[in-house]
Amino acid sequence: MSQTLLSQINSPADLKGLDENELPQIAQELRDFIIEVVATKEGHLGASLGVVELTIALHYVFDTPEDLLVWDVGHQAYGHKILTGRRDVFRTNRDLNGISGFPKRDESVYDTFGVGHSSTSISAALGMAMASQLRGIDRKHIAVVGDASIASGMAFEALNHAGVSDADLLVILNDNAIGIDPAVGALKDYLTKTKSGKETGRDNIFESLNFDYSGPIDGHDLPLLLKELKRQKSLKGPRLLHVRTTKGKGLKQAEIDQVRYHAPGKFDKITGDITPADTSLLPPKFQEVFGNTIVELAEQNENIIGITPAMPTGSSMKIMMNAMPDRAFDVGIAEQHAVTLAAGMATQGLVPFCNIYSTFLQRAYDQVIHDVALQKLPVVFCLDRAGLVGQDGATHHGNFDLAYLNCIPDLIIAAPMDAIELRNMMYTAQLGLELPIAIRYPRGRGRILNWQQPFQKLPIGQSRVIHLGTKIAVLSIGSIGAMIDDLISDEELDVTHVDMRFLKPFDHDMLDDIFEQHEHIITIEDGTIIGGLGSMVVDYASAKAYKNNIYKLGIPDVFIQHGPTKDLHKIAGIDSETVYNLISDLSTR
Amino acid sequence: MSQTLLSQINSPADLKGLDENELPQIAQELRDFIIEVVATKEGHLGASLGVVELTIALHYVFDTPEDLLVWDVGHQAYGHKILTGRRDVFRTNRDLNGISGFPKRDESVYDTFGVGHSSTSISAALGMAMASQLRGIDRKHIAVVGDASIASGMAFEALNHAGVSDADLLVILNDNAIGIDPAVGALKDYLTKTKSGKETGRDNIFESLNFDYSGPIDGHDLPLLLKELKRQKSLKGPRLLHVRTTKGKGLKQAEIDQVRYHAPGKFDKITGDITPADTSLLPPKFQEVFGNTIVELAEQNENIIGITPAMPTGSSMKIMMNAMPDRAFDVGIAEQHAVTLAAGMATQGLVPFCNIYSTFLQRAYDQVIHDVALQKLPVVFCLDRAGLVGQDGATHHGNFDLAYLNCIPDLIIAAPMDAIELRNMMYTAQLGLELPIAIRYPRGRGRILNWQQPFQKLPIGQSRVIHLGTKIAVLSIGSIGAMIDDLISDEELDVTHVDMRFLKPFDHDMLDDIFEQHEHIITIEDGTIIGGLGSMVVDYASAKAYKNNIYKLGIPDVFIQHGPTKDLHKIAGIDSETVYNLISDLSTR
Repeated sequence: MSQTLLSQINSPADLKGLDENELPQIAQELRDFIIEVVATKEGHLGASLGVVELTIALHYVFDTPEDLLVWDVGHQAYGHKILTGRRDVFRTNRDLNGISGFPKRDESVYDTFGVGHSSTSISAALGMAMASQLRGIDRKHIAVVGDASIASGMAFEALNHAGVSDADLLVILNDNAIGIDPAVGALKDYLTKTKSGKETGRDNIFESLNFDYSGPIDGHDLPLLLKELKRQKSLKGPRLLHVRTTKGKGLKQAEIDQVRYHAPGKFDKITGDITPADTSLLPPKFQEVFGNTIVELAEQNENIIGITPAMPTGSSMKIMMNAMPDRAFDVGIAEQHAVTLAAGMATQGLVPFCNIYSTFLQRAYDQVIHDVALQKLPVVFCLDRAGLVGQDGATHHGNFDLAYLNCIPDLIIAAPMDAIELRNMMYTAQLGLELPIAIRYPRGRGRILNWQQPFQKLPIGQSRVIHLGTKIAVLSIGSIGAMIDDLISDEELDVTHVDMRFLKPFDHDMLDDIFEQHEHIITIEDGTIIGGLGSMVVDYASAKAYKNNIYKLGIPDVFIQHGPTKDLHKIAGIDSETVYNLISDLSTR
Repeated sequence: MSQTLLSQINSPADLKGLDENELPQIAQELRDFIIEVVATKEGHLGASLGVVELTIALHYVFDTPEDLLVWDVGHQAYGHKILTGRRDVFRTNRDLNGISGFPKRDESVYDTFGVGHSSTSISAALGMAMASQLRGIDRKHIAVVGDASIASGMAFEALNHAGVSDADLLVILNDNAIGIDPAVGALKDYLTKTKSGKETGRDNIFESLNFDYSGPIDGHDLPLLLKELKRQKSLKGPRLLHVRTTKGKGLKQAEIDQVRYHAPGKFDKITGDITPADTSLLPPKFQEVFGNTIVELAEQNENIIGITPAMPTGSSMKIMMNAMPDRAFDVGIAEQHAVTLAAGMATQGLVPFCNIYSTFLQRAYDQVIHDVALQKLPVVFCLDRAGLVGQDGATHHGNFDLAYLNCIPDLIIAAPMDAIELRNMMYTAQLGLELPIAIRYPRGRGRILNWQQPFQKLPIGQSRVIHLGTKIAVLSIGSIGAMIDDLISDEELDVTHVDMRFLKPFDHDMLDDIFEQHEHIITIEDGTIIGGLGSMVVDYASAKAYKNNIYKLGIPDVFIQHGPTKDLHKIAGIDSETVYNLISDLSTR
């Protein structure tokens, strides 16, 4: 592909050197470049394609990085990265030690705020604008936020505050009617109906919040964008520009199947075609197990409800939403609401399965404590993408859940080692528990092909012995136990392996046995080393005055960056080789 | 006081037996009764006085408890409690083993949802309404939410979802233009300007979200309330009734000084006068130390900013807001926004002091991780009301912060033993830290009178020896260390006492000394026993293979109810007597 223009753009200053009539060519080349790289490297495609013109116009009109530009979530920032000096390294996107898939402060001065979770941009940009104001610095502050993100609570909190400030804040609402899945909610319906306020004479919801509202305008019309952004640049105070874009713009399939092309994996850069890998012989993803199992259970138990905050596809809740549309709901990017909605349902005897990514449950931590656990309401939390998630990196790892949930009274915490255990935990959770339960499982495939076994009720708080050995015992929780099991089998190790299954209640009886019969105890978890399984084992040993040697393996107390999960496990020291070496070392002592 | 009518009301059924024209008398008696009891018992006065007519009208018109009524926050629910069978026990309000100051599910079938933190009612009521719908039960679901609470993010998330449902949900907006402090934000300004939508022909923000909006109406006009609620009872679908009330209605001083009379302490039930206790000879509250110290620091460091989410009075941030209105902000009930706003400011070199109650920081847990710690932004979190808070009870105890913060990388965690330490920690925090810091301190008074000492920089992560003894060492963190210090002095104990000061980074050098020189180690903290100081000490002992005996004292892994803090400390086993007995026991071993 010839890149006569894009190849000369190493910073926004280069972009400003072009004539306005050259910008459409830049847009075409930028789009082609994103498609070419993402087609082989994988990554988030659709969002970045949708804002190609907007990205060019922003850097052309505003004086970045002096003017401060904050991208919400960051799925859409590939064009921004490429235009701000990262064209060449873009091919390392999401690689170990490569650039991040999200804006990141220590990667570029143009990345003014690190993002990943949604709806933070308005708060951050307002903070920057208030700082400029206090210091008398005349610059612009721009938050670009999607219509799915702006419907989340914290975005509203920021609008509500900004509206009574006189901060120089421009919020650009990138309205494409979709997040990862189609946007939902009353605000989305409202935005869809919106026409220019001046034309209709109607009050506008953003004007009600004291924003100067403009739009909606076509976000792919470069001349119009340039004109409007120049006008916005001359204004001050809180203002919102409503821009309509098409997610996936410029790649036909991506425009048509926007959910699939949000992050399509590998595809043909010319045709856009995705050649699906034949996965029929692979063990299923934990997500597929969840999605099929909840439907199976819901067919038997009419009290079961499914709730997802904006992750129907990623979590596979979509399967239930399709099968039972009256009983499974996408509530939008609204984790707080999702949890308390579930609590409200549970007061009436329903059994809500609230599926939330581990990292996003951080958004609803108070609701888990205050609305669910404190009232002993039997909500079932299915925490998807627990542990290290790979290429999405530090913003998305689900490392903290075991620690932050463990200190909450009256909450059962479980983690299945494999698909069958996940099914049985889900089955057990809907049999009339009198407490809430959190079931955490990782992203991706397990190791069991023949997973659709008859359900078995699991005794709450009871662990299981996977392998009996002498002298050394490995205690694991969750799917990392499968790695231990494989290791013991492959290497024929004389090591005891216990799948703890539950962090809470904790199987003290099993621990007594283990401590009495083994000299060395190894704990391993795909979660932070502080406050999870290892800490519980050490605490119990101390309380019972066991003097065995305990070796804790877990994710160290640092933020782990992005890269293939296997590599990250190695970096964290929770990989097979590390465990093998430790066992070998202890065996010879 | 004669209660000819109220004394006959033991349930809403009794209320329904009255004529409508008898209800004003009930209102007067209910108001008098609340004033009489709260005047001596203390508690939340203003909010309940404001909704006397609304409470009566709701129970008169709707068929509670069959119809489900959810009070947001619950400060306003005294009238509800008195009318639903708890008139006689109302005199035990907030006592140990008495009724709770908030609605609580296990206290009454009329308390459909436990509350305490704001903005949960719409989510909960929607969950109930969806449950009824699924089961084909025809009943009403009503959330009563204040104008300060509805501006918080999760309330918006709930409105956004409810607007696209066809749930039978009535949201009553109790608009008194104040939370605990005056309400802030663009929505509040909007509500103040609101007139009846039908009169003005303007679109309404709630109508934009697909709610059937009615009002505003006078919430003290009983006949009008009855009429409108009867009309609402005949409707279905999501609808919002805007009711204007006066906080403190019926007690003149409470209407005039609404902030002070939110929870005025003891007052004269006839005149309303508060006789302020002479506190000039008492040590100051930690809150006063915070409020005065931040101003003192901000006078020297122009980068310091103060942020409070709706607690200017409670936190004493009000002192800075009065002294430096351009640099201290109340952002409303918006903890998520407050934290990310602070992060945005910190990117520009400001030093935001974000003062949030420990229990409310749970609302912004993700933002602390994702927006602050992950980016190493030096935000200063001042966590007020950490540990057991007393009569506000389980919803408000700040028990979990040490545990839920400790697992976050790149976050400094500190807890001052006394006022001088708090000042020095705040001083140190603004000297150019390269990481965020959380400083947690309790509600109420310390023990130091002469607290305004010159500032001293504290070495981050360094503990201090308070007393040297032999054989037994007590390691404490935070203000509970003062109790240990007093105990050692009073009883002349031969015990070492170390004030750990920081949970993170943790002073391992000191621990080495302590473990080498003592047989028994006691840890004590005013926080959950899981995941805080004790767990860290045990973890370190295990890692270094120390075989000393460790005794962990902390709040047990249960929800602690309400009552005087001293009593709760005893229940939790972190009181002076428990420690003394343990030390005595260990001394003789």
